[in-house]
Amino acid sequence: MKIEHTDILVLGGGPAALVTVATALENFPDKKITVIKEDELSLVPCGIPYIFGEILGDSDKDTMSCGGPMAEMINIIIDTAVSVDIEKKTVFAHNHTITFDKLVFATGSNPFVHKSFENALHLENVFTIEKHKDKVDALKSYLADKEKVIVVGTGFIGVEMATELRSVGKDVTIIGGRHVLADAFDVDMALQAEQIMKDLGITLSLGQHVSHIVHSNGKASCVELCDGSCIHGDVIILATGYQPNSTLAKEAGLKLARYGGIWVDEYMRTKNKDIFAVGDCCGRRDFITRDPSKVMLASTSASEARVAGNSLYGLKYLKGFNGTIAIFSTMIGNRVFASAGVTEARAKEEKIEYTVGFFEGLNRHPSTIPDASKQSVKLIALKSSGQIIGGQVIGDKEAGEVINIIGLAIESELTAHKLVSLQVATQPLLTAAPTTYPIIKAAQQIIRN
Amino acid sequence: MKIEHTDILVLGGGPAALVTVATALENFPDKKITVIKEDELSLVPCGIPYIFGEILGDSDKDTMSCGGPMAEMINIIIDTAVSVDIEKKTVFAHNHTITFDKLVFATGSNPFVHKSFENALHLENVFTIEKHKDKVDALKSYLADKEKVIVVGTGFIGVEMATELRSVGKDVTIIGGRHVLADAFDVDMALQAEQIMKDLGITLSLGQHVSHIVHSNGKASCVELCDGSCIHGDVIILATGYQPNSTLAKEAGLKLARYGGIWVDEYMRTKNKDIFAVGDCCGRRDFITRDPSKVMLASTSASEARVAGNSLYGLKYLKGFNGTIAIFSTMIGNRVFASAGVTEARAKEEKIEYTVGFFEGLNRHPSTIPDASKQSVKLIALKSSGQIIGGQVIGDKEAGEVINIIGLAIESELTAHKLVSLQVATQPLLTAAPTTYPIIKAAQQIIRN
Repeated sequence: MKIEHTDILVLGGGPAALVTVATALENFPDKKITVIKEDELSLVPCGIPYIFGEILGDSDKDTMSCGGPMAEMINIIIDTAVSVDIEKKTVFAHNHTITFDKLVFATGSNPFVHKSFENALHLENVFTIEKHKDKVDALKSYLADKEKVIVVGTGFIGVEMATELRSVGKDVTIIGGRHVLADAFDVDMALQAEQIMKDLGITLSLGQHVSHIVHSNGKASCVELCDGSCIHGDVIILATGYQPNSTLAKEAGLKLARYGGIWVDEYMRTKNKDIFAVGDCCGRRDFITRDPSKVMLASTSASEARVAGNSLYGLKYLKGFNGTIAIFSTMIGNRVFASAGVTEARAKEEKIEYTVGFFEGLNRHPSTIPDASKQSVKLIALKSSGQIIGGQVIGDKEAGEVINIIGLAIESELTAHKLVSLQVATQPLLTAAPTTYPIIKAAQQIIRN
Repeated sequence: MKIEHTDILVLGGGPAALVTVATALENFPDKKITVIKEDELSLVPCGIPYIFGEILGDSDKDTMSCGGPMAEMINIIIDTAVSVDIEKKTVFAHNHTITFDKLVFATGSNPFVHKSFENALHLENVFTIEKHKDKVDALKSYLADKEKVIVVGTGFIGVEMATELRSVGKDVTIIGGRHVLADAFDVDMALQAEQIMKDLGITLSLGQHVSHIVHSNGKASCVELCDGSCIHGDVIILATGYQPNSTLAKEAGLKLARYGGIWVDEYMRTKNKDIFAVGDCCGRRDFITRDPSKVMLASTSASEARVAGNSLYGLKYLKGFNGTIAIFSTMIGNRVFASAGVTEARAKEEKIEYTVGFFEGLNRHPSTIPDASKQSVKLIALKSSGQIIGGQVIGDKEAGEVINIIGLAIESELTAHKLVSLQVATQPLLTAAPTTYPIIKAAQQIIRN
């Protein structure tokens, strides 16, 4: 096999790989950049649930690529990397051997499946949600003539899968912890999401641990809960999270962080300064609590990739990536649920001395604007200084950007005192009233506490 | 006339008065608060144009008040204040005499009319847009059976009036400077607004100064431009800006700032520490350029009111209001135009050494999401440090909050380097892609420059 050389080698085809390549191209136009990815077409990961409903409806509508002009400036290899020799700066794939100056792991994540389900994975009607087009297509086509679907897991992917499948008429039961989206929302907010799901006709089975999957003749018949009750279904979808795809890095001798991600510093460098890791495959710390973090988000991955892409040949900007802010949004029915930073529950667990501000207003003003609807904002701040450490928003589509205002406040370590005199653009057709802009009103409540 | 005493006296009925009262109530629940306002019902100022179209359609739908429980905790007097004796801490209204400990001017603004039009104001078919319900109703009823409307002025109110009147079938011509919304948008962005207005069927007459209004028998017949041409219309609406309503303060001996607003310090105090001024009636400085500012916004007024409301009996939070960030949004056709801070043109005028980043992407991802549409972001930053000093956004409704992310970046003095690794929530149905979030991409272009 011919040995090829490249200056920068990126392993992966998801958002982290894409942004690393784009950033490296901008910074180092003279370097040869090579990408090894497994699939010709990568899926937009957060779009996957919408393939199963009517919004996208087809995996062909959920693809992304290194796109147009970029593709011509880099070397793309469709292959699977099988080992890395760090000493010799060489990656071995099935059909290629490539030496590199700089290596970036962007190998993503794979579905996490609890031990008690592992023996069910071979069953014809049990699926995880893998981020590969052929696997997604297989699940979609299997679902076509099935009626009763069980989704195990009440994180974002589980909730989105449940609502999308319901939207095309499936009889859906979702099984999970005490409340849906529990990592991102406090109970008061989660209850609203649960009510909408019920109104959509989804059956919620919450607060009961799953015991095991009952099966016979290669097919699952039901999910048995710890109280002995059974939930029957034609298809079982396990949406129980993801784990870093770091085996290759581990076998190459790189250090892993807790939860199995590749250990990296603030510039996304592994212990070897020529080798980087970005995206779901790397180890993460929480921005606020400084604990190891399991949060996996394409937007966070893109931030990490920009830091890595800038820092491949030396540190350009101090400082790098200062920890993961869990910052999410999704739509349930026609309401948006969005969250950033720590929840009240999490703050309690972490023994953070916190205080809370809450305001429910409208997203338009005056209230007579035809598409006006409720907008609720909850802010969580340090009790002593008023520094904002978390926020939750429920509203219409604009809530998807309102949460980014709160995210920026968290990332910039702003206090509630700063937010109360925040200057915002308000407009009748677009935003809350200047007199009752919910972020400001919630901040006001914090400084009064 | 009986002399009444109040602890806190607020003059005015608009957003600045409302927020001052609400903030004072929260901070000083034991103080007696009195408001003197001219109208029983105040209009939501930025909602006024929508009374003339179908969105609100009626001034009854555009009112605000001190609302519900608040109204019962304060003393509201419908009257007109005619003089203030600072020495004796007394306000004289037509039917009331009130002594105070603390006085807050929130007397707002009145239409500004250029000298060349002043003699036309008595004509039956020439109107300004006053923020009083009866005046707005009079204009609306006068318009009912008229066809051809001329709007003079291409600021936000002029543009909104023109598009709303067009939406109910009027034949509308708008007359203004070289480009619409010139204070808020650079030419490249303004051209898009103009194209939409043309597509809506509005006639644009730009770049020609108005000479005078031609009239006979108490009625205007046309607007004559400086090149001698005439634009005929049944109704002429002057939307040529507003000026501080500061006569009362001036006559009381308070110092005025340039442009005629009441001079205030960063805590909204006049030269007399017991007398405050907030909202359009006060003098303003620009956050970036530090020049006197003519910008009048309800959202800015609300910020000032919160600072004043907190500071009436002593300074609670350092520091106060640090200058006006011009931060606007509006909708033209089905596109949102939003702007914050300085434009490129303004930066040039002010001899600021700036650099620009621009990105046009989509507001959803992937591009196959049914309601995906273009989202453009332009950022203006200091050339040396990359500090963000301005931004402009064109997009769908979410742009009304995207501009507030940029506003917060300006207010927090963030640099483009900070924004490139910004962590944002991205979601297919709600936002741009994590890989091409427009604010981040525009920031990237700035650090490459």
